Amino acid sequence: MSQWGAERAERAQRITAGASLAAGKIVGADMAVALLEAVIKPFDRVCLEGDNQKQADLLARALADVDPAKIHDLHMVQSGVVLPEHLDVFEIGVAKRLDYAYSGPQAARIAKMLFGGQIELGAVHTYLELFARYFIDLTPNVALIAAVSADRDGNLYTGPNTEDTPTVVEAAAFKSGVVIAQVNAIVDKVPRVDIPGDRVHFVIEAPKPFYVEPLFTRDPGAITETQILTAMLAIKGIYAPYGVKRLNHGIGFNTAAIELLLPTFAERLGLKGKIATRWALNPHPTLIPAIESGFVEQIHCFGSEVGMDDYIEARSDIYFTGPDGSLRSNRAFCQTAGLYACDMFIGSTLQIDVNGNSSTVTTSRIAGFGGAPNMGSDARGRRHPSQPWLQAGKEADPDGSPALRRGRKLVVQIGETFGEGNAPTFVEKLDAIALAERLHLDLAPVMIYADDVTHIVTEEGIANLLLCRDRDEREQAVRGVAGYTEVGRGRDAKMVRRLRERGVIQRPEDLGVDVLDADRSLLAARSIKDLVRWSGGLYRPPSKFRNW
Amino acid sequence: MSQWGAERAERAQRITAGASLAAGKIVGADMAVALLEAVIKPFDRVCLEGDNQKQADLLARALADVDPAKIHDLHMVQSGVVLPEHLDVFEIGVAKRLDYAYSGPQAARIAKMLFGGQIELGAVHTYLELFARYFIDLTPNVALIAAVSADRDGNLYTGPNTEDTPTVVEAAAFKSGVVIAQVNAIVDKVPRVDIPGDRVHFVIEAPKPFYVEPLFTRDPGAITETQILTAMLAIKGIYAPYGVKRLNHGIGFNTAAIELLLPTFAERLGLKGKIATRWALNPHPTLIPAIESGFVEQIHCFGSEVGMDDYIEARSDIYFTGPDGSLRSNRAFCQTAGLYACDMFIGSTLQIDVNGNSSTVTTSRIAGFGGAPNMGSDARGRRHPSQPWLQAGKEADPDGSPALRRGRKLVVQIGETFGEGNAPTFVEKLDAIALAERLHLDLAPVMIYADDVTHIVTEEGIANLLLCRDRDEREQAVRGVAGYTEVGRGRDAKMVRRLRERGVIQRPEDLGVDVLDADRSLLAARSIKDLVRWSGGLYRPPSKFRNW
Repeated sequence: MSQWGAERAERAQRITAGASLAAGKIVGADMAVALLEAVIKPFDRVCLEGDNQKQADLLARALADVDPAKIHDLHMVQSGVVLPEHLDVFEIGVAKRLDYAYSGPQAARIAKMLFGGQIELGAVHTYLELFARYFIDLTPNVALIAAVSADRDGNLYTGPNTEDTPTVVEAAAFKSGVVIAQVNAIVDKVPRVDIPGDRVHFVIEAPKPFYVEPLFTRDPGAITETQILTAMLAIKGIYAPYGVKRLNHGIGFNTAAIELLLPTFAERLGLKGKIATRWALNPHPTLIPAIESGFVEQIHCFGSEVGMDDYIEARSDIYFTGPDGSLRSNRAFCQTAGLYACDMFIGSTLQIDVNGNSSTVTTSRIAGFGGAPNMGSDARGRRHPSQPWLQAGKEADPDGSPALRRGRKLVVQIGETFGEGNAPTFVEKLDAIALAERLHLDLAPVMIYADDVTHIVTEEGIANLLLCRDRDEREQAVRGVAGYTEVGRGRDAKMVRRLRERGVIQRPEDLGVDVLDADRSLLAARSIKDLVRWSGGLYRPPSKFRNW
Repeated sequence: MSQWGAERAERAQRITAGASLAAGKIVGADMAVALLEAVIKPFDRVCLEGDNQKQADLLARALADVDPAKIHDLHMVQSGVVLPEHLDVFEIGVAKRLDYAYSGPQAARIAKMLFGGQIELGAVHTYLELFARYFIDLTPNVALIAAVSADRDGNLYTGPNTEDTPTVVEAAAFKSGVVIAQVNAIVDKVPRVDIPGDRVHFVIEAPKPFYVEPLFTRDPGAITETQILTAMLAIKGIYAPYGVKRLNHGIGFNTAAIELLLPTFAERLGLKGKIATRWALNPHPTLIPAIESGFVEQIHCFGSEVGMDDYIEARSDIYFTGPDGSLRSNRAFCQTAGLYACDMFIGSTLQIDVNGNSSTVTTSRIAGFGGAPNMGSDARGRRHPSQPWLQAGKEADPDGSPALRRGRKLVVQIGETFGEGNAPTFVEKLDAIALAERLHLDLAPVMIYADDVTHIVTEEGIANLLLCRDRDEREQAVRGVAGYTEVGRGRDAKMVRRLRERGVIQRPEDLGVDVLDADRSLLAARSIKDLVRWSGGLYRPPSKFRNW
């Protein structure tokens, strides 16, 4: 490079351009579009903060309002494609290329736009993987972030929803990027400093607080008896025998049921203190009864959850909280914790194929990955042993040399054989394969790969894939818990019987679980109101969950 | 739990006890021992900051001077066991249990103390793995850290050596831990805020700057022609055909040779811009010529390197730097980048067994893992494709379904067949196995496992283990590049010939590399002085590397 210092000079020029619209670092909300037009350049890599929870929504709207003649061909590098504006920018030509992690609410529209060629797709990532690339080859030129408050020096308070902010800011600010924050309020002194002001160049006071989605709230009232049965099987057939203490739960009613059975079913089995004590997990309201029952020792969170703030503050013995009292979440660290310090990931999925590959993609919806693939696989760089990890490793390779044999993370898929709308969970071939062909992707969007899954739990029983010795056994183990789906009916009954004799497949009766006991009375809370009661009134559910 | 808030109350009590020795947050260096005795309690988990580079050395000495009658049975949870004091605390009974990552300089003494039972070993980790556990089950009650300067509010400037500090502080401060920082100076205003003051409880001004080890400096004058040969083979046989752009280099002369061949040998091969452009790497002085030649686009650093500060500041186009101009390193993010955003890890080792397992442990020395195992394995949660990764995956599984086939990280071991002191690098059985038996470890301390290694490079050639179809082929591929070691002489010559015909083994002549060309004249810099010259005088090597 002949012109050393070019990058810094360019940032200085961008900041100068923006400063003409600012008083110090403060810019009026009505000038947001003008600020973006002054600071962003065509072909920039831009990170617009937003994940499965918090959204820099004012900045998203402003970016969708810039003049495409001035700003175009942006390369968006961001965790979430969640708001309509996140896709509008592609429709109007402001943005062209996309690297992202999660697109739940926009799953249908993003699929359509990808099919139509309106978006040039880089890749769909896990959160941690995308964060990693922020430091190597997807470093943002401009970061558009959200915080609760700022002081006049630009010090930011993100409050409970710290989430991705420290990571995004670190990548951009220290590599000559410009950081623009929308905040709910400008204050004299922030309650705590989540982001030091010298990393923040412009602050906009938004007329409305940034949007947060209560994604991790599950109403106990909607939990079915089949889900309770799968939860009982998981606790008795996996949590207990492996002694799983450090874990992550995915989103869904099946794992919510497990959370609500800890202080009842699990406690009666004498498992308190022996399972599920330390978590990488968002503040799930359904975990309140287990916390109040002394089941849980510590939780580190990716983000927060709407309505849980007061409860968390009062339970700093369990949660990570700041000097202001409120939660400090951190998605990058929590994903790292889930990857390297947890012995189990358990979650639900939309489709599982006969080999055990799973996906949440259908032919018309691309939901992205979020964090599951990161946590739903063994970290091969792991070097510390633990009982569950060693036991799983031994089951997978009973004849290996003990000193050279590695452990395995428990990666569990839990769900009913027929899912929402009575669609079969088990399929011969994932829709993700067809989608990969149609979009000419190098990789099919597989959420968890077959060789990473260790157990599948359905109402028919548990398949322990660690104990399968070849591809055929594996396929029959999957079919053997696939119930009355076509995949299930395609089983080799004799082989499934043999797998059951070997304990590869375990039926409820093999585990001493009476299907008739799977009753809603087992749930520690049967409604959102029950959760509020357990919390001593500290949990304040969002209005859409208040049905009383 | 009946007493919610107990953890915060206990921290408040600790801070009150310490405050009696402080003026505001400031404590005199002569009161360091008293402060630790006031704040730390028996059986605490304590993180004493120190990795393979920076050391909180004043606090380490203070901890070794506390009264074991007052403070005992500590559980040390820290990256590095590097200073004598890190082991002294175990000898005098202040500490009992240890979880750590790296112990290079103390490798012999730590082995002795482990054999003698003076240390109760939790586990040896990779850095990122240990950081992960800080948030789940090894959260520190007290963090003893090091920074360059502090203001009176406790805002810290870590300067170029930010390294582990943000991670350690985040884990401790937000989980009711106490954070004590030693700083080189107390100032009115810090040059930039690396750690916000509201996470820091006490600050001690140290009479001497904290210690930093120039671990990543390799004198080009000491690079041998054999090392140059292995570097040529690696560039022509791996970097070029896979098109490796995003990578990490381990420490050592072999990779230093590669760095110094980029602007000469690699550039003549037309590889500029096509390989080695984006790095997760410390500021290796031997990379200066490649940077000055425009070979390198971006580097994110774990830590800094002594003498490189001015050069880095002037090359902010390449490095991550702060508003003060100096490097911002971050070990957690850089390890994450190495894990998820790099397509290759290449490093040297002490021993490789016939299957390809490697270790830096000998029967009397335990050096720990550092970061290599984290980067020296494929991240199974990775979902973004890249050319090198896909190609490696295809070589490993040519018949797999393309849509369901995953890529593979290139994990390369490079070294001479005989290492230091003429000890054979290739062995039938790793010393690590004997060590595991002697210490009753659940896992042998294997640095990189056989099934993670993709290539081995020696002066005899390259073995591509991805192309091996069974265990036998793999063993013969290893033996086939093991030269005149016993392992090498134990080869099945016919099978090795067949492997060479298939391209599994490539000799220098197969790659068009003339062994006679492996000359020191190929090195872009042949001495430390040459590096200084390349840097335009900006690189200021520490005195032990100045031999002119």
